[in-house]
Amino acid sequence: MKNKTITLKKPCKISSTYSVVGEKEYNGPLGNYYDEFCLDNKFGKSSWEKAESEMQRRALNGAIKKSGYFIENFDLLLAGDLLNQCVGSAYGLSSFKTPYLGLYGACSTCALGLGIGACLFSGDIIKLCGVTTSSHFCSSERQFRFPLEYGGQRTPTAQWTVTGAGSFILGNEGKCEICQVHFGEIIDMGVKDINNMGAAMAPAAIKTIRDYFLESGLSPSSFDLIVTGDLGYEGSEILKDLLLGEGIDIRKNHVDCGLMVFDRENQDVHAGGSGCGCSAVAMASTIIPNIENGILNDVLFIGTGALMSPMTLFQGEAIPSIAHLIRIRRCK
Amino acid sequence: MKNKTITLKKPCKISSTYSVVGEKEYNGPLGNYYDEFCLDNKFGKSSWEKAESEMQRRALNGAIKKSGYFIENFDLLLAGDLLNQCVGSAYGLSSFKTPYLGLYGACSTCALGLGIGACLFSGDIIKLCGVTTSSHFCSSERQFRFPLEYGGQRTPTAQWTVTGAGSFILGNEGKCEICQVHFGEIIDMGVKDINNMGAAMAPAAIKTIRDYFLESGLSPSSFDLIVTGDLGYEGSEILKDLLLGEGIDIRKNHVDCGLMVFDRENQDVHAGGSGCGCSAVAMASTIIPNIENGILNDVLFIGTGALMSPMTLFQGEAIPSIAHLIRIRRCK
Repeated sequence: MKNKTITLKKPCKISSTYSVVGEKEYNGPLGNYYDEFCLDNKFGKSSWEKAESEMQRRALNGAIKKSGYFIENFDLLLAGDLLNQCVGSAYGLSSFKTPYLGLYGACSTCALGLGIGACLFSGDIIKLCGVTTSSHFCSSERQFRFPLEYGGQRTPTAQWTVTGAGSFILGNEGKCEICQVHFGEIIDMGVKDINNMGAAMAPAAIKTIRDYFLESGLSPSSFDLIVTGDLGYEGSEILKDLLLGEGIDIRKNHVDCGLMVFDRENQDVHAGGSGCGCSAVAMASTIIPNIENGILNDVLFIGTGALMSPMTLFQGEAIPSIAHLIRIRRCK
Repeated sequence: MKNKTITLKKPCKISSTYSVVGEKEYNGPLGNYYDEFCLDNKFGKSSWEKAESEMQRRALNGAIKKSGYFIENFDLLLAGDLLNQCVGSAYGLSSFKTPYLGLYGACSTCALGLGIGACLFSGDIIKLCGVTTSSHFCSSERQFRFPLEYGGQRTPTAQWTVTGAGSFILGNEGKCEICQVHFGEIIDMGVKDINNMGAAMAPAAIKTIRDYFLESGLSPSSFDLIVTGDLGYEGSEILKDLLLGEGIDIRKNHVDCGLMVFDRENQDVHAGGSGCGCSAVAMASTIIPNIENGILNDVLFIGTGALMSPMTLFQGEAIPSIAHLIRIRRCK
């Protein structure tokens, strides 16, 4: 088999990160670490969809300002989100007047964007780019599930879509760097329960993590943290159990962004957070800053995504999923 | 301003192409050039969405076979489509067991995928990849417009979504090569008419083409053809007129895939074809083979996309658009 792990000849530095969240996220365990929050879940706009675009705009704007660069310095923007036709990104970033690559990786989009951006940098195609992604609880609920007003009962395995956007500036300067990228395959294990996305996505994370350790010769103990995107409680347990069955023990250093963003005991989010914004705000606010300041040294980030649509589920299909892996380490 | 044109240090060859179309496309002017057609618009499947996935599967499969490679040789697949959450691609390509990058560029997705794939190849990140995209008239109509059964009257500026999928294998071998890429910016000129996508997308094509000629120092006469994706009759006229006003005369060598795929006089398609599949099947069946066989030498392909969703139009927003440019020339 081909080696799928891409080791970047020229690692790509992360110059800055910026996170924007809503009220519930601000009241969660990472509340103090976000760059910006808004108690109005419409972010001053007239619809949830426009609010999501506004979060993306603010996140990219904030990340650019923190980086010290100007928008004129940028070669590319990479972005995506969960909304139909990825309109959160297209409308949110249209004012930046910079070449734009639209991505769709569902909740794995943050890792997908960081991976493609880092590869284009490493290959000397670009020198500087921004990666942005978002999700919004209200726009997601009405698109994927039910109108909020309906007040549908949620199952214990359901996850709560994070209202938030994260942005990352990739280029020549920064205290940490992306040194390896491992893009995942589409995995379809036949899971059909739209209220258990963790179970649908766990097999993709297992495949990507197992392949990475096999190819790299490294083991979980080589890393300070193994961060999955939004498997939640249910998916994280499946991941740890099944990897353990294959002799890969990640129990000591695994965290899941879906379990970091909310307090499951007190915030009524059932199995945890989810959405493109989930891993984006956890990585931008907490994980990457902790690599920059030396608390963490070497981290695997595995963004997980479920690639179904409401239409495909209505038509009886299962939920295909994907997991993209990014290795981020502190610069020497 | 930064130069946005990426000149690939190592041009990326196109090893093979493959096109799959429906009955109406087969009956159109390019009918003899497609690799495969199906008179059943469900392609043997139980829904139009599943048919679209089946077209993608057949297109990639066909392109791989023509290239002489095996799927095990591939580093990456890049794909996208118009369906919500890009499910045409996710379900269509899940059986290929190869790292997958999901893209969303609306009808520009073919150019977007070719551009990213060529850049990753040129930067020595990958050696071999497949780019696939599709659209289906029936799945698009019900998602973006009206149920087919409703029989809505179409306006003169409306375009007909192409039922088709195109696939391209990029790597070390081939008779033609991608040597330059120019990713476009999101352009929003305030056009709100969902039945005139050509007018919405023309400004993005104008911006990309003008910037490319400015940066490259080349002129339209440097190229055998300047191929736009799916501006149709309306958008093509706007493009030629407005470029002429800026001293760029593309009237002699401009063609639009939306005007190639259908016979406007006899196929009742109003302003022409559109959709992700439109430029994909025209490029895969006709333009690229004509570069390979020496009829054409040097071609600019500008994929155009409209980045709205039905939701954003309901909310009163205009249609943002984008155009990505790829230069393809015959290998020396």
